[in-house]
Amino acid sequence: MVHNLDALFDPENIAVVGASNNPLKAGYTVIYNLNQIGYPKEVFPVTMSADEILGRKCYKKLSEIEETVELVVLGTPAKMIYDIMDDLAVRMEKRRDVKVIVCIAADYGETKTEEGIRRQDCLIQTAEKYGIRVVGPNCIGIIDNINRVDTTFVETLIPKEMRGQKGGISFISQSGAMAASILMMGASGPAPISMNKFISIGNMADVDCIDLLEYFEQDADTKVIGMYLEGYPDGRKLIDTLARIARKKPVVILKVGRSSIGAEAANSHTGSLAGADSVYDAAFRQFGIIRVYTIEDMMDTLQAFDAMKIPAGRNCFLLTQAGGPGIYCTDAFVDEKILKFPLVSEETKRRLADVLPPMANICSPEGYADITAAATVSHHVESLRAVMDDDAVDSVIFVTVVPTFLPRRELAEALLRLLVEEGYGKKKPVCICIMAGNYVWECRQILEQGGIHTFDTPAHCVKAMSHMTAYGQFLKGQEEEADE
Amino acid sequence: MVHNLDALFDPENIAVVGASNNPLKAGYTVIYNLNQIGYPKEVFPVTMSADEILGRKCYKKLSEIEETVELVVLGTPAKMIYDIMDDLAVRMEKRRDVKVIVCIAADYGETKTEEGIRRQDCLIQTAEKYGIRVVGPNCIGIIDNINRVDTTFVETLIPKEMRGQKGGISFISQSGAMAASILMMGASGPAPISMNKFISIGNMADVDCIDLLEYFEQDADTKVIGMYLEGYPDGRKLIDTLARIARKKPVVILKVGRSSIGAEAANSHTGSLAGADSVYDAAFRQFGIIRVYTIEDMMDTLQAFDAMKIPAGRNCFLLTQAGGPGIYCTDAFVDEKILKFPLVSEETKRRLADVLPPMANICSPEGYADITAAATVSHHVESLRAVMDDDAVDSVIFVTVVPTFLPRRELAEALLRLLVEEGYGKKKPVCICIMAGNYVWECRQILEQGGIHTFDTPAHCVKAMSHMTAYGQFLKGQEEEADE
Repeated sequence: MVHNLDALFDPENIAVVGASNNPLKAGYTVIYNLNQIGYPKEVFPVTMSADEILGRKCYKKLSEIEETVELVVLGTPAKMIYDIMDDLAVRMEKRRDVKVIVCIAADYGETKTEEGIRRQDCLIQTAEKYGIRVVGPNCIGIIDNINRVDTTFVETLIPKEMRGQKGGISFISQSGAMAASILMMGASGPAPISMNKFISIGNMADVDCIDLLEYFEQDADTKVIGMYLEGYPDGRKLIDTLARIARKKPVVILKVGRSSIGAEAANSHTGSLAGADSVYDAAFRQFGIIRVYTIEDMMDTLQAFDAMKIPAGRNCFLLTQAGGPGIYCTDAFVDEKILKFPLVSEETKRRLADVLPPMANICSPEGYADITAAATVSHHVESLRAVMDDDAVDSVIFVTVVPTFLPRRELAEALLRLLVEEGYGKKKPVCICIMAGNYVWECRQILEQGGIHTFDTPAHCVKAMSHMTAYGQFLKGQEEEADE
Repeated sequence: MVHNLDALFDPENIAVVGASNNPLKAGYTVIYNLNQIGYPKEVFPVTMSADEILGRKCYKKLSEIEETVELVVLGTPAKMIYDIMDDLAVRMEKRRDVKVIVCIAADYGETKTEEGIRRQDCLIQTAEKYGIRVVGPNCIGIIDNINRVDTTFVETLIPKEMRGQKGGISFISQSGAMAASILMMGASGPAPISMNKFISIGNMADVDCIDLLEYFEQDADTKVIGMYLEGYPDGRKLIDTLARIARKKPVVILKVGRSSIGAEAANSHTGSLAGADSVYDAAFRQFGIIRVYTIEDMMDTLQAFDAMKIPAGRNCFLLTQAGGPGIYCTDAFVDEKILKFPLVSEETKRRLADVLPPMANICSPEGYADITAAATVSHHVESLRAVMDDDAVDSVIFVTVVPTFLPRRELAEALLRLLVEEGYGKKKPVCICIMAGNYVWECRQILEQGGIHTFDTPAHCVKAMSHMTAYGQFLKGQEEEADE
C-alpha cells in the first residue's frame, strides 16, 4: 500500500461527506473548522440536506464533484458506509484522485459487533482496492497547522486570527476524548498551544501509531512528538520505533493502563492490550523516551521542548521573587533526583548583590536566590541575566508573583527583550512561572506570543525542566557511547 | 492579652494608614478592595497626600478620626512607624477604641536588621500597652467574606457582584506571596472560590497560627481549615492543636520545607525552623490531618470538603463518558491506595443497562462504567442516579468530555437538578470533572454557582476524593475507639 500520508496533512481539496447546516452536528463543525483555520484550497460539503453550508456549495455525491479531491472526511452515520463506498468506487474508476479517508464516525469495528466489523471491512476493502489510506474510524480527525487543515469536529473557541499557529509539536492520540480534551485545554491557556500536526487515530483500521511516528520522525517541522497511548498489538515493534526516534527528537508519552484495573478498562475501551506496564516503563527509561503521568505535565513538557533549548547539564538555578513559592518549588525540585543546584561563581554572587535590593537572599542555599517582593522589573531581568551568564548554570527556573506595584506588561516585555531580542533564551532553557490566575494572564500572553512558554505553578516548571534535563543527559550518554 | 480576634474579622469601622490615590500603591488597593467587597461600615483613609480616595474622605492622622475605629490597616513605609505609634497613643489615651492592627508593610523584623527589629518592637510595644492585637507585619492582609472585610492589597479581578461570596473554607498562609497566589488562582476558576476567612500572618509578631487555628476551631462558619505552613517555633504545640481540631473539622495543610534544601530556604525566608519533615508527616497521618503536596491539590481538596459530604466508606464508583480519560482516571485511582472500586448489585447493573446506550461498558472492570461519547444529558443523569442509589457505593467520580452535540448548559442544569434539587449531593459526595478548557467553562460555572465544585482533570477528582475518604476513615476510627 502506498504511503500517501502527505495527502493527509496537505491535501489538494477536501470533501466532507455527511456535512450539515446544524451547528450541533459534527458535519457542521468540520466545515466550520476548515473555514476558521483558513484552509487555502477547496472544501466540498457532501450532503442531501443542504445546498450551501457556511458559504461552501454542497454536492449530493462524492462522485459529482468535478474537481480533484485528495482527502475525504467521512462523518455520515456508519450504516451508510455501503452506499458511500459504492459512490466512492464510481469516482475512483473515473478519477483515481482520493488518497486518504479520515473517518470521524463511530459504530464500526470498535463495537465488536458483527455489523460494526462488516462496516469497517467494507470501508477498508474499498480503500485498499484504490490505494487509499484510512485514518479511523472512530476518531476525531486531524489538524495540520502548517498547511491549515482541520478535519476535527472539536470546538476549541480559538479566535480565527489565532488559528493555525505553527509550532514544533506533533501529537498522536489513541483516544478521541483525550485528543479533544487536549485540544480544548491547549486552546485555553494564555496563548493557544501551537501544534504542528495533530491526529486522533481511532480504531487504527489502517493508519496506525507506527505509520505516524515514522512520518513525524522524517518530518523536519516536527521538533517533539507527543503521544497518548493505551496499548499496541506489537509492543516490541512500537518500542523499537520509539527508541530509534528518541535518538533524534524527544518523544513524550502518556501511557495509561498502568494499573491492572486500568489495563482492563483499556481493553474494554479500544481492545488494546496494555501490556505489562513494567516492560514499557523499563524500555522507556532505557531508550530515552520521556514518560509523563498527567495531562498537565504532558502539555507543559511538550511546550517546553518546543520552545526551549535542551539543557546541557543538570545544574538548574532557582530564581524566585517570592519566598513561599520558592520553597514550594525547592521541594518539588529535590523530588526530581535529576536536577542539581549549581554552585555559581563569587563573581556571579557579586553581580547579583549589585543588581538586587539589599534584602535579597543570594545563594542561601546555593543555587537559589530570592530577589524579594520588592523587586522591580530591572531586578527581575538583571538577576536572570547574571545567573544565565554563569557557566555553572545549565538552566534556570524563574518564579515570580506579580504584586500591584510591579507593572505586568513591562515585566513581560523586558523578559522578552532579554530572552528573545538579546538571545538569552537560545543559550539556556528558562522555565518561567508567573503567578497567578487572571491577574497575570495578559503578562503571560505577551510572553507566550513572543515564543516563551509560561507555567501555571512552580512545580510545573520543575516537572518540565526535569524531563528536558533527563533527555539532555540521555543524548549525552548516547554521544559518549558513540565516542567510545 | 485580650483575644480581640472578633474585631479582626468584624470590626466597627476601619482606618487605612498610608492610603493612596495611586493605583500602583498598596494603600490604594486596600481602599479599592474594601469598596469592592462592600464593607458595610466606615472606611477612613489616613494620608497627608489626598483629601479623598475612591469616594472616602481622608484624614491626616489616626487621632483626628472622630468616629470609632476598631481595625487599623498599616500600609505606610516602615520607617514611619514611630510617628504613627505616637499618634496611635494619642488616640488610645482619648478613646481606647482600636482593637486590631493589620500591618501590611514590610521591612520589620523579617529583615533581621537592627532597625527592622526596632520598628517591630515599637509596633508591638505600643499595641501591647493598649491591648491591641497585631497581624503581621509583612503580610498581605485578611479577608472575611461573611462580614465583607478585605484589607489585602491583592487584586483578584473578581467582578464586584461576585465579591464576598460566603463559603466554609478558612485559610491561613505563612507566606504573603503564596497567599496572594491562592487568592488570584482561586479567583480565576469557573467561579471564584468562596472563602470564609482568609489570613496572611506574615512575621507573626503577635497573632500566630495557633491563635487563628483556635479561632477557626470555634468558628461555626468554618467548615474546613486550609494552611500553608513553613514551620512553627513550637512544633509540638502546633501538632497538638491541629490534632484536636482535626477530630472536629478537616484541616488541609500544604507543609513545605520537606527537603533539607527546602528547609534551608524556609529558614532564610521566615526564619521558621521547618523541623524534621518526617516528624510532621507521621503526626499528620496519626492525627487525621490532611497533607497535600501541590497548590492545585490543596485548592481542590478544600473546595471538595466545603461542598460535599464526607464519604462513609472507601467504595468509589468511576463513571465516565470517555474511554481515554476514564482509563487515565483509573490509573490515578489505583495509585491512591485508599480508594476501592465497589461491587454494585445486579439490580444496579440492570438499571444501568436500561438507561444507557447499547454500546455502554457496564462494570468491566467492576465499579467502572463507560457511558460512551454517544451519551445524552439523560444518559449522564440517569446513570449517575442509578449508581448513587446503590448501597455499595460510598462516593462517585464522574468524568465527561462534552462533544459538540451534547448541550453544555442543559447538562449542567440537569446535574444541578439531581444533585441539588433532588438532594442526591447531600447523600454522597460526587467529584465531577467536565473536560476541558474554555469550551466547558460556562457549563462548569453553572454547576459551581449552584454549589457543585468541578475539577480540571480526572486525576484532580481522584486526589480530592482520596483525601476526603481518608478523613472519613479517620473519623470512623475515632468513633470506633470511642465505642470500645
